[in-house]
Amino acid sequence: MLPFSRNARSMRTSEIRDLMSLATRPDIISFSGGMPNNDLFPIAELDEIYQSLSNKDKQTGMQYGPTPGYPPLLESLADYLASKGLPVAANRLIITTGSLQAISLLGKVFLDPDDDILVENPCFIGAISVFKSYQACMRTIALDEDGILITELEKALHRYPGAKLLYLTPYFHNPAGIIYSDEKKKAVLNLLHGKNLVLLEDDPYGELYFDEKDLPLTMPMKATADEPAPICYIGSFSKIFGPGMRLGWLLTAQEIYDKCELAKQSFDACTATFNQVLADKFLRSGKLGPYLSRLRQAYARRAGIMLRALQTCMPEGVRWNMPRGGFYIWVQLPQKMDATEILKKAITGGAVFVSGKTFDPHGVRNNCLRLSFSHTPENQIDAGVRIIAEAIKSQIALK
Amino acid sequence: MLPFSRNARSMRTSEIRDLMSLATRPDIISFSGGMPNNDLFPIAELDEIYQSLSNKDKQTGMQYGPTPGYPPLLESLADYLASKGLPVAANRLIITTGSLQAISLLGKVFLDPDDDILVENPCFIGAISVFKSYQACMRTIALDEDGILITELEKALHRYPGAKLLYLTPYFHNPAGIIYSDEKKKAVLNLLHGKNLVLLEDDPYGELYFDEKDLPLTMPMKATADEPAPICYIGSFSKIFGPGMRLGWLLTAQEIYDKCELAKQSFDACTATFNQVLADKFLRSGKLGPYLSRLRQAYARRAGIMLRALQTCMPEGVRWNMPRGGFYIWVQLPQKMDATEILKKAITGGAVFVSGKTFDPHGVRNNCLRLSFSHTPENQIDAGVRIIAEAIKSQIALK
Repeated sequence: MLPFSRNARSMRTSEIRDLMSLATRPDIISFSGGMPNNDLFPIAELDEIYQSLSNKDKQTGMQYGPTPGYPPLLESLADYLASKGLPVAANRLIITTGSLQAISLLGKVFLDPDDDILVENPCFIGAISVFKSYQACMRTIALDEDGILITELEKALHRYPGAKLLYLTPYFHNPAGIIYSDEKKKAVLNLLHGKNLVLLEDDPYGELYFDEKDLPLTMPMKATADEPAPICYIGSFSKIFGPGMRLGWLLTAQEIYDKCELAKQSFDACTATFNQVLADKFLRSGKLGPYLSRLRQAYARRAGIMLRALQTCMPEGVRWNMPRGGFYIWVQLPQKMDATEILKKAITGGAVFVSGKTFDPHGVRNNCLRLSFSHTPENQIDAGVRIIAEAIKSQIALK
Repeated sequence: MLPFSRNARSMRTSEIRDLMSLATRPDIISFSGGMPNNDLFPIAELDEIYQSLSNKDKQTGMQYGPTPGYPPLLESLADYLASKGLPVAANRLIITTGSLQAISLLGKVFLDPDDDILVENPCFIGAISVFKSYQACMRTIALDEDGILITELEKALHRYPGAKLLYLTPYFHNPAGIIYSDEKKKAVLNLLHGKNLVLLEDDPYGELYFDEKDLPLTMPMKATADEPAPICYIGSFSKIFGPGMRLGWLLTAQEIYDKCELAKQSFDACTATFNQVLADKFLRSGKLGPYLSRLRQAYARRAGIMLRALQTCMPEGVRWNMPRGGFYIWVQLPQKMDATEILKKAITGGAVFVSGKTFDPHGVRNNCLRLSFSHTPENQIDAGVRIIAEAIKSQIALK
């Protein structure tokens, strides 16, 4: 027996991961990946950026950089965040190796084994994996169509007074697909007054609203004047450039920044400089704005196709959100139905999604499933939804 | 008071780091950075690689990849490692975000707070930072000119029977500059028989031998038929491509690989795919071999210049190693001399290095210092060494 840590001895590969590895038939229609569509990456822009690099840019990109980030990117990113109303002057910015690393750094800096933390249910699976790896006790709070349930949050704050973190994904939630209302955001902030707790505001999808009129809803809590608890604002280049670049960021108060910077020294010393040079040029090129317009239209169209398919084929008793941005539709099945059973049938039929309990920090609630419309070829969306609807119908018929 | 973890409450920025931040005068001659020279990066090769990328390569590079690595790179890297005699078929390979992440993953997988581990003294500072971050107890074993002291290692194994890891950097050690003899490597492996301990063999500099006749010495312990304890072989693209790419690897047994892959899911999900695409093309291009020949010659010339300067200017009682590869010369001062005092004088004089205690896991032993010849412009090496020699002489005169 190898001398593994307590933590490693409890590490398990997930059932869903194993099931997914079966779904590799080349003809399978996949709604499972929470990733951008390959055809939507800014490849022409990337080529232009590469061609514009000086020899010195390339040398800098090949070299180690400072732990908190490549200085020109810290500057251009600060400008970009300031334009969204974020308080960059009163905070510090650190570039992370994907936004997942920001969550991981915050886990390192705040969490001891058995610490209580408050999370949404459903919750981003990457965050679940980080919090588990620090052996935190995730206390879950349900969501409705405009955000976390405030009375439940209030109860949880009362019941777990030592809770160290509250982790929220308020904008085009993964997997729930929703965006928080202004009222919900205000109510959350109100409840945090006087609590010794840190709010992690994770915002990887905020730029991907489908309709300009929803732009005000994407205003981060971190951008409001009142910060009753320290807010760690986490963002990512994954949805606005490419996840293969592994670039994210964390905007937070000096005291938290200091600890995260020290922690990052032992994680990977610095984030890939080469990628930071490219991202900096992209931000400064003026090409991001037009690119985002293109992305918003493309994802809105895909979401529309999926919605129409759902409306056409889903049986009674199945509900879903109307996505106003992001990548996801969260489908709620009749009370006692098990999404993993449906997944098995759907895989046989030729379509795949992620069953709900993957996103439940306790791995239990499974009468729900996530459909991602971001990565699937447009002309397969309708057929894929039909296969899943058939799987659900045949499961209903069994009852 | 923010609710930091126990770990974070004990995080401290190092005195040396703070001192270094003072040494930013543009005219200062720096021997402090353990990084390649900017002019030696394979920029022409990088350009050729980028030009050769298909649209599909670029899309793949912009996308998430599998956690263990981009499959074509796993394949080309396995070929490269097999050519060095490493047992790739009997082990698994995982691409890491720099080799530091490999150490960090192994820390996560093996270390609980207060676990004993055995490390060299002096020791790679990145590894010290990882082991501290997991609150391990580092038990140190001194080095001489051909490796770890075997009798001391034997004593330590006896005294700390629960020690989980032995961390070694046998090839062109950072900072000690030495390479292990075959006898030392054999003696280490002999001592590990029957111990429930894992050997971390860290090999970032092995390719940078100055003389072809030393090539046999760079044969990894992992490549010997007998593996008395599980050996985790850690390598890096930092010295053979560029550290700004943040690409490293870990070759290890299936059981350890499985845990590391799960741990990596919570670190950063995957290493930057774009960089992996570039590294794969570089390995397959046939350009690595000629590039390494160029590098070896360039670093050998720099080492020679530094050695001649040391021989010319250093006062009696100062000793150093004759580097046969890598980036470093380790300078040992007279018994009671303090390298930090000399560093202050040298900075005033216009040269900077890293004082020895930075590399002592206990932060104590300081009658030694590290000179890196890798990054300094060739024509500054002589002048820089003279400044340091003057600082040492004036310190001797004070006694």
